[in-house]
Amino acid sequence: MSFTQAAHKLLVIPGPIEFSDPVLLANATPGTAHTSPAFIPVFGESLSLLRDVLLSKKESGSQPFLIAGSGTLGWDATAANLIEQGEEAVVLNTGYFSDGFADCLEAYGAKVTQVKAEVGSIPTDDAIISALASKPKLLTITHVDTSTGVLSPAGHIASLVKKHSPDTLIALDAVCSVASEEIKFDEWGVDVVLSATQKGLGVPPGLSVVLASKRAIQTVESRKTPIGAYYISWKRWTPVMQNYEAGKPSYFATPPVQLIYALNTSLKAILSSPIADRFAAHKKASAYVKDSLAELGLDFVPKSRDIAANGMTAVRFPKGVTAPDVLPKLAEKDIVVAGGIHKAIASEYFRIGHMGITAVDRERGDLEKVIKGVKEVLGKA
Amino acid sequence: MSFTQAAHKLLVIPGPIEFSDPVLLANATPGTAHTSPAFIPVFGESLSLLRDVLLSKKESGSQPFLIAGSGTLGWDATAANLIEQGEEAVVLNTGYFSDGFADCLEAYGAKVTQVKAEVGSIPTDDAIISALASKPKLLTITHVDTSTGVLSPAGHIASLVKKHSPDTLIALDAVCSVASEEIKFDEWGVDVVLSATQKGLGVPPGLSVVLASKRAIQTVESRKTPIGAYYISWKRWTPVMQNYEAGKPSYFATPPVQLIYALNTSLKAILSSPIADRFAAHKKASAYVKDSLAELGLDFVPKSRDIAANGMTAVRFPKGVTAPDVLPKLAEKDIVVAGGIHKAIASEYFRIGHMGITAVDRERGDLEKVIKGVKEVLGKA
Repeated sequence: MSFTQAAHKLLVIPGPIEFSDPVLLANATPGTAHTSPAFIPVFGESLSLLRDVLLSKKESGSQPFLIAGSGTLGWDATAANLIEQGEEAVVLNTGYFSDGFADCLEAYGAKVTQVKAEVGSIPTDDAIISALASKPKLLTITHVDTSTGVLSPAGHIASLVKKHSPDTLIALDAVCSVASEEIKFDEWGVDVVLSATQKGLGVPPGLSVVLASKRAIQTVESRKTPIGAYYISWKRWTPVMQNYEAGKPSYFATPPVQLIYALNTSLKAILSSPIADRFAAHKKASAYVKDSLAELGLDFVPKSRDIAANGMTAVRFPKGVTAPDVLPKLAEKDIVVAGGIHKAIASEYFRIGHMGITAVDRERGDLEKVIKGVKEVLGKA
Repeated sequence: MSFTQAAHKLLVIPGPIEFSDPVLLANATPGTAHTSPAFIPVFGESLSLLRDVLLSKKESGSQPFLIAGSGTLGWDATAANLIEQGEEAVVLNTGYFSDGFADCLEAYGAKVTQVKAEVGSIPTDDAIISALASKPKLLTITHVDTSTGVLSPAGHIASLVKKHSPDTLIALDAVCSVASEEIKFDEWGVDVVLSATQKGLGVPPGLSVVLASKRAIQTVESRKTPIGAYYISWKRWTPVMQNYEAGKPSYFATPPVQLIYALNTSLKAILSSPIADRFAAHKKASAYVKDSLAELGLDFVPKSRDIAANGMTAVRFPKGVTAPDVLPKLAEKDIVVAGGIHKAIASEYFRIGHMGITAVDRERGDLEKVIKGVKEVLGKA
């Protein structure tokens, strides 16, 4: 099935990533009705498999949503459904994408307090506990901020919230962490995981992936004011998702049928081995990349290895070297990495993605190719 | 390239429709960065080609938007960007989808007046003129209401608005009409055309397609209150779309790269012949379907042929016949049509889609197969 993989550059940015042939083939599924007996079980099963990836049981009352949209749409879903005008939200800020989540919350009327970490760091426990003193409605965590490659200790942060402000809802922006970093949805007591398909899930972009807790759904049901949005209203989507999961057709807006076939294919591949093995494979791939770059004398944006993502690496250029010295030369070798996007340091670093088949199927040799390319371009081969 | 078309049922509902092999192959494009030199011109060209399909010149200042989402998202975009709390909107209601647009406008704070037509009819000129007396901010037209197959005379209605309330913005829900019915965006003076890819455009679902007029963009820029949404804010997307059209990378949320490759492929095919020929082909296909069904003694939901869509047909069952007598039997013959969804008459009719390659590439024989199937199932072969 190499039809789709005709000479293309190796895509090792922190999303979109490389997609497997079966996933691409599924994305080319012929015209199929969103209410057809062929598609309904595929959609329903995908919702259920998403819970499995996030270690959530159906009995917990957690509710998955698969809706056409970018990952960003998950911010809107969180804000529009859970926040009423003037309610407080705390944003733990570890980079560019935390800024975006804060902007989105404010657009829907939230009063946002940001707990900003230094670039490459995470907020301290004390700062988090202090921000919880006002008992905010919502606290957001950017699990992996794609701009810095910083991995927030989501489970630990959730435990702080449970201790110091148990009624505060916890939203985890997991766009760059689902299926590459461990998420224990039920055990941690997270209320929203929001993500997208084009990163750890290994599916073309265009599908917003959300899991909401029973508590989050109840919060929507007990709102005092109506939801100030339409397309992302969980009140409208919840019965649709529940019907599909129960094997019944349902309609609110047309789902992206082909992307859901592709996601179904990828979820089954992901869950064909114990999920713990997948996270271990990402850790191993990450260690290979980071160790190899460290051997070249390069520094990283995250200030320590224990807060560095396993699905991507944000690495600083050597002194005197800039993006135009590196990125175009890697592209000439058919290797596509990403430049920096965190305003404060944008010109000082670049980013390598190692999620999905690139991390798990090491026989592809993707990461060896990247490291070899970086060595050559930096004159250290 | 028959790889993708392995035995599947003929999809002749009013969307999603049958997709061509080149479109499906484009939807299987390997992992490609949204900011890559390969993708930028594809995205930029697609924006420009969309204007061509809608007969709008770039010099008019019209602004296309291609954003991951269902067609429904276009309602949110219209409402959130153009309406401020308490402003008036008039909804010309020709069915289920007009109801939805009204609900969406209300979710964003609009004071909605509906001009409801009888099922199968369109609002009278007098009723429209009367609704314009209050000089509403916005008037919406459902070009083809997919629930009834009624085609509204959008150009004529626009001329009424220009005469009786020229400052009123005109939004055309063209989900089920773009590339199957003629739309003269600039000539008619429409302010928003909102659509989706899975109907006349012949591309898998998941992409919200919008064209906004210069006046609509200026309306957003001169709002008194901030936009109460984030993902669909035109303030955030306009510079991104303008950058891509100018050949420059830009980022707000990750675009659905594969769907845009697929759309680009379809738009080029659509525009490879004069667009007038395409509309003529849809009229011819529609006449064939409607004449053939009329010969069987069947009646239609639209009360006359001149307000019947050319991309679909809503046809009533003969007396004593219901959906379970027809739809499953057609499915056994690998023909998928759609049931009724307009509440008032849901059990009394069914719907056949004839958009895209089914209408244009008549050598496929799709429509002959459908008519033959209907004849057999109704015992009239």
